[in-house]
Amino acid sequence: MPDSDAPLGPVDATSVPRFAGPATFARLPRLDEADPAALRDGIAILGAPFDAGTSYRPGARFGPGHIRGASKLLRPFHPALGVEPFAAQQVVDAGDLALNPFDIPAALTAVQTGVSALRRMGLRVVTLGGDHTIALPILRSLATDGGPVAVVHFDAHLDTWDTYFGAPFTHGTPFRRAAEEGLLDLNRCVHVGTRGPLYSDHDLSDDETLGFQVIPADRYETGGVAEVASAISRRLGDRPVYVSVDVDVLDPAHAPGTGTPEAGGLTSRELLGTVRALAGRRLLGADVVEVAPAYDHAEITGIAAAHIVYELLAVMSAA
Amino acid sequence: MPDSDAPLGPVDATSVPRFAGPATFARLPRLDEADPAALRDGIAILGAPFDAGTSYRPGARFGPGHIRGASKLLRPFHPALGVEPFAAQQVVDAGDLALNPFDIPAALTAVQTGVSALRRMGLRVVTLGGDHTIALPILRSLATDGGPVAVVHFDAHLDTWDTYFGAPFTHGTPFRRAAEEGLLDLNRCVHVGTRGPLYSDHDLSDDETLGFQVIPADRYETGGVAEVASAISRRLGDRPVYVSVDVDVLDPAHAPGTGTPEAGGLTSRELLGTVRALAGRRLLGADVVEVAPAYDHAEITGIAAAHIVYELLAVMSAA
Amino acid sequence: MPDSDAPLGPVDATSVPRFAGPATFARLPRLDEADPAALRDGIAILGAPFDAGTSYRPGARFGPGHIRGASKLLRPFHPALGVEPFAAQQVVDAGDLALNPFDIPAALTAVQTGVSALRRMGLRVVTLGGDHTIALPILRSLATDGGPVAVVHFDAHLDTWDTYFGAPFTHGTPFRRAAEEGLLDLNRCVHVGTRGPLYSDHDLSDDETLGFQVIPADRYETGGVAEVASAISRRLGDRPVYVSVDVDVLDPAHAPGTGTPEAGGLTSRELLGTVRALAGRRLLGADVVEVAPAYDHAEITGIAAAHIVYELLAVMSAA
Amino acid sequence: MPDSDAPLGPVDATSVPRFAGPATFARLPRLDEADPAALRDGIAILGAPFDAGTSYRPGARFGPGHIRGASKLLRPFHPALGVEPFAAQQVVDAGDLALNPFDIPAALTAVQTGVSALRRMGLRVVTLGGDHTIALPILRSLATDGGPVAVVHFDAHLDTWDTYFGAPFTHGTPFRRAAEEGLLDLNRCVHVGTRGPLYSDHDLSDDETLGFQVIPADRYETGGVAEVASAISRRLGDRPVYVSVDVDVLDPAHAPGTGTPEAGGLTSRELLGTVRALAGRRLLGADVVEVAPAYDHAEITGIAAAHIVYELLAVMSAA
Amino acid sequence: MPDSDAPLGPVDATSVPRFAGPATFARLPRLDEADPAALRDGIAILGAPFDAGTSYRPGARFGPGHIRGASKLLRPFHPALGVEPFAAQQVVDAGDLALNPFDIPAALTAVQTGVSALRRMGLRVVTLGGDHTIALPILRSLATDGGPVAVVHFDAHLDTWDTYFGAPFTHGTPFRRAAEEGLLDLNRCVHVGTRGPLYSDHDLSDDETLGFQVIPADRYETGGVAEVASAISRRLGDRPVYVSVDVDVLDPAHAPGTGTPEAGGLTSRELLGTVRALAGRRLLGADVVEVAPAYDHAEITGIAAAHIVYELLAVMSAA
Amino acid sequence: MPDSDAPLGPVDATSVPRFAGPATFARLPRLDEADPAALRDGIAILGAPFDAGTSYRPGARFGPGHIRGASKLLRPFHPALGVEPFAAQQVVDAGDLALNPFDIPAALTAVQTGVSALRRMGLRVVTLGGDHTIALPILRSLATDGGPVAVVHFDAHLDTWDTYFGAPFTHGTPFRRAAEEGLLDLNRCVHVGTRGPLYSDHDLSDDETLGFQVIPADRYETGGVAEVASAISRRLGDRPVYVSVDVDVLDPAHAPGTGTPEAGGLTSRELLGTVRALAGRRLLGADVVEVAPAYDHAEITGIAAAHIVYELLAVMSAA
Repeated sequence: MPDSDAPLGPVDATSVPRFAGPATFARLPRLDEADPAALRDGIAILGAPFDAGTSYRPGARFGPGHIRGASKLLRPFHPALGVEPFAAQQVVDAGDLALNPFDIPAALTAVQTGVSALRRMGLRVVTLGGDHTIALPILRSLATDGGPVAVVHFDAHLDTWDTYFGAPFTHGTPFRRAAEEGLLDLNRCVHVGTRGPLYSDHDLSDDETLGFQVIPADRYETGGVAEVASAISRRLGDRPVYVSVDVDVLDPAHAPGTGTPEAGGLTSRELLGTVRALAGRRLLGADVVEVAPAYDHAEITGIAAAHIVYELLAVMSAA
Repeated sequence: MPDSDAPLGPVDATSVPRFAGPATFARLPRLDEADPAALRDGIAILGAPFDAGTSYRPGARFGPGHIRGASKLLRPFHPALGVEPFAAQQVVDAGDLALNPFDIPAALTAVQTGVSALRRMGLRVVTLGGDHTIALPILRSLATDGGPVAVVHFDAHLDTWDTYFGAPFTHGTPFRRAAEEGLLDLNRCVHVGTRGPLYSDHDLSDDETLGFQVIPADRYETGGVAEVASAISRRLGDRPVYVSVDVDVLDPAHAPGTGTPEAGGLTSRELLGTVRALAGRRLLGADVVEVAPAYDHAEITGIAAAHIVYELLAVMSAA
Repeated sequence: MPDSDAPLGPVDATSVPRFAGPATFARLPRLDEADPAALRDGIAILGAPFDAGTSYRPGARFGPGHIRGASKLLRPFHPALGVEPFAAQQVVDAGDLALNPFDIPAALTAVQTGVSALRRMGLRVVTLGGDHTIALPILRSLATDGGPVAVVHFDAHLDTWDTYFGAPFTHGTPFRRAAEEGLLDLNRCVHVGTRGPLYSDHDLSDDETLGFQVIPADRYETGGVAEVASAISRRLGDRPVYVSVDVDVLDPAHAPGTGTPEAGGLTSRELLGTVRALAGRRLLGADVVEVAPAYDHAEITGIAAAHIVYELLAVMSAA
Repeated sequence: MPDSDAPLGPVDATSVPRFAGPATFARLPRLDEADPAALRDGIAILGAPFDAGTSYRPGARFGPGHIRGASKLLRPFHPALGVEPFAAQQVVDAGDLALNPFDIPAALTAVQTGVSALRRMGLRVVTLGGDHTIALPILRSLATDGGPVAVVHFDAHLDTWDTYFGAPFTHGTPFRRAAEEGLLDLNRCVHVGTRGPLYSDHDLSDDETLGFQVIPADRYETGGVAEVASAISRRLGDRPVYVSVDVDVLDPAHAPGTGTPEAGGLTSRELLGTVRALAGRRLLGADVVEVAPAYDHAEITGIAAAHIVYELLAVMSAA
Repeated sequence: MPDSDAPLGPVDATSVPRFAGPATFARLPRLDEADPAALRDGIAILGAPFDAGTSYRPGARFGPGHIRGASKLLRPFHPALGVEPFAAQQVVDAGDLALNPFDIPAALTAVQTGVSALRRMGLRVVTLGGDHTIALPILRSLATDGGPVAVVHFDAHLDTWDTYFGAPFTHGTPFRRAAEEGLLDLNRCVHVGTRGPLYSDHDLSDDETLGFQVIPADRYETGGVAEVASAISRRLGDRPVYVSVDVDVLDPAHAPGTGTPEAGGLTSRELLGTVRALAGRRLLGADVVEVAPAYDHAEITGIAAAHIVYELLAVMSAA
Repeated sequence: MPDSDAPLGPVDATSVPRFAGPATFARLPRLDEADPAALRDGIAILGAPFDAGTSYRPGARFGPGHIRGASKLLRPFHPALGVEPFAAQQVVDAGDLALNPFDIPAALTAVQTGVSALRRMGLRVVTLGGDHTIALPILRSLATDGGPVAVVHFDAHLDTWDTYFGAPFTHGTPFRRAAEEGLLDLNRCVHVGTRGPLYSDHDLSDDETLGFQVIPADRYETGGVAEVASAISRRLGDRPVYVSVDVDVLDPAHAPGTGTPEAGGLTSRELLGTVRALAGRRLLGADVVEVAPAYDHAEITGIAAAHIVYELLAVMSAA
């Protein structure tokens, strides 16, 4: 019999086989199943099925369901950090936001509203994308009551372009808009895993002017996880941080199921290790975006994404 | 605003995009969300994730989730029969049974218990397999209070073999066991879509001795849906009937995602038409089994299975 | 040595292997390669890579390239109709339109402008989609100088819904908008291959009120190609016609690579035969839409689409 | 205990699961395992892994292994014909020929030599391709001691082209060469299932001049299996016949795993039914060619091919 | 002409193309083809097609055939170790065990019997799984005449859980059972590559209590192959060792075709290097398990597994 | 408005979406679109669709189109080298060579002729394979006017075997033939990434006798990119160099779409880094070969190949 004060955890894998049971993330309880009091200081997993901001391969609208499907093997104890994320606080699956696929601004508003509502319940939010456009309204929600936010941004791309085809809000522009709107503590923002060709050298200088720092993917080749983790730590100082993970930071071998893949990326071990190194620092929230299942195989990308979410939850439990 | 007496239907597709929302069949309400009173004379969709009875390609344990995932495009009105299955009665998704993957008899007991519990609430049950082994405990439940059952069995195979490797309860034997246990009204049982090689001519004579009738897949080539439907109708007389659909009755082109595929099968149009022709007859329940998603592509098999379930629901609404 | 007056045909397969050579449809000349004079009364293949109007599985933005890739095996002579479509007139590949992926109305304008420009050169246009939204601006172009258009519309769906999420221009609404705008000769319009569940019986009555006729997919089961072709012919009378083919009119077995698949569809042989039966009638143009390659396998869908385009070209040559 | 005079059959599926055991066709004995005396009047399954004659998608070199892998579910009794092909005569798997992938003439010689050696043992040969080039040396072997051969040729294509890139021996030319070499009883040869565009109307007139008859795929749409079977029978008269099955006679939905797919083809049920209708006629041998596994999915094509082979064996047993 | 005393090697790739020939591992001779005298001190490759002990994605029953299919490119000389494994001793393919898919204990007995029979011929056995359950009966065979066994266990998981659903013998429990039965020299046992979440911290303490040591996957990130190899060597001392390789020790990018994938794993180069570092040590036998081909793509997993087997054979030749 | 003297670059991604537009490499201009004067000192991308020299999995004939399709995301600025390859010189897509698939010597002649023609225009040539056989005629072209060539050869295999089945010109022999013909500056030739089993130790000694040096894949495990790059640099001295990249130098996880995969290979990041380290050295030309799309997934291999080509272009711009 469970301790009545303990958080409600995942379905017990010794009585319900992992291929059965609820379709929530890690088979966790739904938001409406948890004790409302337990939600304070809890964490919500939130689906943001949306890809109208995608410039190349679409399909991230099916990302939340795919990550949930690939999360069924997750277990309660994280040995490297020695924490039990589902016991350290109440973690719930808040389901999917209903986002208008034909109206980007309306969808962004709905994301912001949805995230803010959960945050008002005392929940930190880990969002499952959807394309990267959704990072902007999440940052708007965070900055509204917390001021400018430090961000660790794992991505093959800078995502600080200005517009695509005249559209200001797409998956290539969220951090430009966020910088312009004053949502970011730019001295504490860093791109990690960037690589591949750019439009011009202005991409880098513009990005630098905005205030970002870049740790390119090559840094892993020369210094490994340890050096990248140190560089991130120096950049962040002692600040709480928002973590935004575009799954295309992984090499296409590790994440084929995404929209704008670039060769030369990270292994899943490198990414998990780098996220893990954030342990001890307060995370304000996080997202894992750009999982496009139509291009995945055998859930490789989905499993990587589910493990990243789990690693983020463990870091949030170890702070 | 919904009529308070009306059944609770699927999530509204005009406010929640079809790629979002709950992971239930057709995005219907869960069993616990419906008004208990409305369940009487309602229908439950029940997952039976189980494949320990599989002799060749395993994987039907992932079948229920796959069929649900492929059911998101289903809409409320069936034009050919002129019925609204989700409005004609309360249809709910009762989730998955927790079936022991290492103990076939224990799993069969759990299926029977689970189906009987739903039936006691007044629900008819449409079960999503799982392999065909699960048909036996469903028939046990039905026969317990209703006596021997007439069965229309769509399948490439007879499933009346005796044992495999000494095991009496596998996906090749449910109807043999059911006949032996007196669960079947054998004069009213018929296999439809049978084809492919057999172990020996005893397979047919044994099957006939048990009391079954066979309408082989070739009958569609010569007489089409109309003739097959007539033959089924003649066999059934005016009896209520249980419908068991092994998705391998479809040709591998239409259902690659299954465990023991046989060339020369039905098209999905033929199968849907044949099921539709049962309209006007009371269905005691039904199952759609042997969907093995690891072998599916682009949800071809899942979509076929979801449409078959919908067709069964429409027939159940049109009786 | 080619006859200098003869249309420029595909690359010669006896000197350039079919897996080499230009990436144009059927390895035909590009628009800029043909003699401008020869374009009068010619045919242009036009790519409309666009899927911002998609409600479920996106990806038709990659459709034109996929159909071209699957068209390399097409040969010059159509034996059933006894015509050589690439010799009967100049057929060219006009490349892709540049369509704004983030602004549906802008994209529709660009389609209309692009089609009209080709038509002013004397070309009839066969458009490769892209999602079905693009049919509307094509019909606008045709109706502008030709008045209301008769349409044979092959599709699993009616595509006469009103709005999705408030959006009036999506892949589910082109024929509603076209009817409202007076672009259609509604007494001469027919949906062929419709099937699957609808939102309500209003879908059908609304569609009928607009003036459409429906030949459901089941008609093939009972009457075959011959009967469907007769019904179409009766509906059209002696009118020239625009043909719009949503590849999801095919069964998912024959066209897995599409966005809103429905079981129970046509075989590719049935569809080709029905299109072929239009021979002798003037075609004003045509489109083949909703090919989403991320869901295709071994080019099944692409090959079907390429053959449909070829069949349309043959019909246009046999008038 | 087996009857010592009875043919050695497949591994017993009740003691060795179908996913285990030898990799021979249908888990039959190898040539060297059978009693040499039993081989007289027996049948050999022979692999001809070769695709150097392929003009488009290569890969049929892996065809024999793929068909064997997909044949594991075949069982001993053919209910429609009432025969047991593995008991009616000794059927063995003669393994693969070692064919030079870089020297077409050398490979053709090796095929002829290999087939003739088996035939001298008294075996009829069913060859698993490999591309269609291999039909020529098989016909050479047959004609050497039996004179001109009647052929039923199932194929989307005529395969009577003259040369490709100057090469006289490719997968598009075997029947032209065979006709020129006098290997064919041309008044008794028929192509079945032909469809799709041709190079010119000369393709048909040349083919007719050679003496072939064509039953196009459309004939199935109008007359079904029965009419096609009648037409074949009329063409063959009372002659023994060689049957050559290019798997691309099937629609790409039923046989994606092939090299030159054409939409509008046969279903596997139609093909099996047409082959079955040859029962009562002596088959001199047969081949099933052009299975290219890299393009197959879930063994759809392999299973179709394995069933075709089984159907051929049943017909050979029912003569 | 081969030296009559030399071991019988693979089919010669200069006369039989690699895509042809026998379906044995590396196209080696079958057990019955080799000189019985040569078997003493030889090595047998043995298939154990079995997955009834699988808790998540099933399908390892098709593993042995898949690994054999992916082994066709292996060549005779190992340059890094300078050995010719197929010449250093007689290596044979002993085919598949016939394992009851419905009765785990019966299957385990059959594995033990089969392995012991080969060992009595003087053969060391490299087993192709099948799921990891099969390691237990192999260890039983080894311990029966050799006493407790040192084991290097490459795996993402500990496989020392107690029971699943009451079942003591599954793929998650073999090393727990082996420890309990006294089959293991626990001071010389080590898990390599472990990662991912656990059920609780008891998993680790229980494992440690049993006597195992853990080298987690992260060790590769910090110390590389060299450090892991040293740690293994220190643990083993000078003991002969059994090597058990669960292919899920590889990252899902390198081994998608397995049942319980975990992100953050090894590259194939790391695993091969670590196995290679065992050279000089006597191997008592080995297994490569959990290859589930339905989830593989382009034989990535199969090729990795085949190379691991080859590396093991090379190490066995270099001792 | 473009500078009239500036090279013509790719289609502008801000006006033509990346999923639209020309099918040329990186959407660059075709050879015939560029100013002839600008071609001097320019670079041509040339397709060599050919796989008649393949010993195992064929399909590289579709490689050039696949690499082009996967190159659409490439952008103009290379940040690590600080160059703009498409602005530093005119880069054009010269289309595909028409290579006889049935006559290897004829195809080799056509490659040499085609490459030489481009070189006479002043273009350096980067060839998209096709199988590795095509490296020989390219080297012939280069040596004809430039004398023996230094070669950096990235490959899992040595490709210095003598003959296969008597064929001297196949994908396993180009560098043997090139050495014999005196085309190579053997003291400056190096194989990088070699791994996997060989036929015998003669393979290595023969290779060494020819004059090659080998840097096996394991060197990356111990020394990383930096050490491999140094070793290459020492070998090359100050010589200009030809770079030949067999995509199978990558691990199968990073390049499943190839013909003779070997486990234990490079990551795409390692390969790109090693190529990048050639910056400052003159490249005479390059090839990227053995991309076989039928075995690719989600364009993983195609994207890797496209990035390698881009890296080569950047190095050619940075010399």
